Amino acid sequence: MVFSVTILGSNSALPTSERYPTAQLLNVAERFYLIDCGEGTQMQLRRNKIKFTKINHIFISHLHGDHLFGLMGLISTLGLMGRQADLHLFAHVDLERLYRPHLDYFCADLPFKVVFHAIDPHQWLIIHEDDKVMVTSVPLRHRIATCGFLFTEKIGLPNIRKSCIEQYELSIAEIVKIKNGADLRLDDGTIVPNDDLIVRSHLPRSYAFCSDTKYIPSLGEKLKGIDLLYHEATFTDAEKDLAKKTGHSTARQAAMVAKQAEVGKLIIGHFSSRYKQTDVYLEQAREVFPLTEIAGEGCVFEVAVKPGIF
Amino acid sequence: MVFSVTILGSNSALPTSERYPTAQLLNVAERFYLIDCGEGTQMQLRRNKIKFTKINHIFISHLHGDHLFGLMGLISTLGLMGRQADLHLFAHVDLERLYRPHLDYFCADLPFKVVFHAIDPHQWLIIHEDDKVMVTSVPLRHRIATCGFLFTEKIGLPNIRKSCIEQYELSIAEIVKIKNGADLRLDDGTIVPNDDLIVRSHLPRSYAFCSDTKYIPSLGEKLKGIDLLYHEATFTDAEKDLAKKTGHSTARQAAMVAKQAEVGKLIIGHFSSRYKQTDVYLEQAREVFPLTEIAGEGCVFEVAVKPGIF
Repeated sequence: MVFSVTILGSNSALPTSERYPTAQLLNVAERFYLIDCGEGTQMQLRRNKIKFTKINHIFISHLHGDHLFGLMGLISTLGLMGRQADLHLFAHVDLERLYRPHLDYFCADLPFKVVFHAIDPHQWLIIHEDDKVMVTSVPLRHRIATCGFLFTEKIGLPNIRKSCIEQYELSIAEIVKIKNGADLRLDDGTIVPNDDLIVRSHLPRSYAFCSDTKYIPSLGEKLKGIDLLYHEATFTDAEKDLAKKTGHSTARQAAMVAKQAEVGKLIIGHFSSRYKQTDVYLEQAREVFPLTEIAGEGCVFEVAVKPGIF
Repeated sequence: MVFSVTILGSNSALPTSERYPTAQLLNVAERFYLIDCGEGTQMQLRRNKIKFTKINHIFISHLHGDHLFGLMGLISTLGLMGRQADLHLFAHVDLERLYRPHLDYFCADLPFKVVFHAIDPHQWLIIHEDDKVMVTSVPLRHRIATCGFLFTEKIGLPNIRKSCIEQYELSIAEIVKIKNGADLRLDDGTIVPNDDLIVRSHLPRSYAFCSDTKYIPSLGEKLKGIDLLYHEATFTDAEKDLAKKTGHSTARQAAMVAKQAEVGKLIIGHFSSRYKQTDVYLEQAREVFPLTEIAGEGCVFEVAVKPGIF
């Protein structure tokens, strides 16, 4: 079962001819979650041959144009394509106030419903949950209210080891309890721990998207052990002061968060258009955290299945 | 002195990975006029190495998203680039009502003024005039109020033939009058026509942009003799009924307008995304009007200087 992130846009506010503003697609077992939606996202979806119809949830980190100016175009196109399923938009409360009049005017005949979900970007809160993922808001520090998103895979209930069913002659009721996390108490009072009774298909995988933010020294601790971290890296060491002033991070700072969090892999992006190449970003990040990659347009970062406890 | 049109986007509502929604740039002696502004226009401007700062006037044919969803991104980018000169937007009156709240929210610190000019798309009216061009609205017939734009080059006052100045011993006052179109009355009552006294640098060149419209049989007569005509051609003969139903034209109908108007060249665009290739469009248009070209992304159509009357 796939768990992957496709980069649709990697640049900061000023797009170049090659790099688009922020947008990413998370694919969890062929359920698609769009994260930010900069101008040109729908063209990038096409370029990457991603089926628009599989997107039911869009998460907007903050209301700066380079993270959402592709929304109207995408929604309009989904309408022309005859979409019927509800589309869920998670964003700051102001998005609905601003975009509802545009939807009413430009997409009057939309054959589906756009459902706005107001999120509080200042809190760590579960903002969405379905059978594939749980999404938590990650408060960040930018010039305006901004949050990232932590996606944690949901893998369903574990199976009971066949040998245990036979050995302990488990009833249906006991099996249900054990699947839901209970230990087993034997007649002689011995406790068999849940982990000894079950087989998980794999451990839940996780991805955190940390959109525009200044360096937050405590962030790594809160994102401990996630598999894949995207952290913005608008600037290099040379513009450290500018980063702080504008509410952004350097590549090195992104790597410091990744190192502290002991993530499986770090992706950096949201590059300032003053840089034609991204070599400097990568070099400076890798000095701190070697497992760093560049969020290049069209790059796909897949998290492999992690065997569970058998 | 250049008079050219660069195609930035040629597709209809659903962009493909190769063809963007409608946007064009008219260059008149290095003064740039943007015509429609579909999503991705700013990326296309960069791709074509066009200097954003030279755009002072934007003309929006109608308020369908594929003709304007690139506006906010472009304006936002112009702000980040530090633009200071006013930016003039010509469009249906609803544009200001819809976009002012977005400008106030997303571009609060814009270092320049966005000046909205409400146009009446139902009238042939001069909507803008400067020292380079005169722009006239061209009423079209689409599903919503829509107009095209006729750009007519202004070439300044003509020069007086040197030989005439000597022969008729013209005073400064007489020269000014003749430059402004007056004939010359000699002492014996003879009239020397203005055209015999002056030298024009060249004849004014013209470009008409006919955005989304169903076929208007009388349109060609009204655009008689223009040099370059863009006429939408969303469909081919096979979808003639669909064209009528959706307020669009076929390639053949676009060519019929061009033929009637006896234009120098026809450009067709706004292609339905059902067509991967544009061969069929070109073939059917050229059967009626051979001087037809496809509005391909990045194509530049230049109108050569036409010698005046010497």
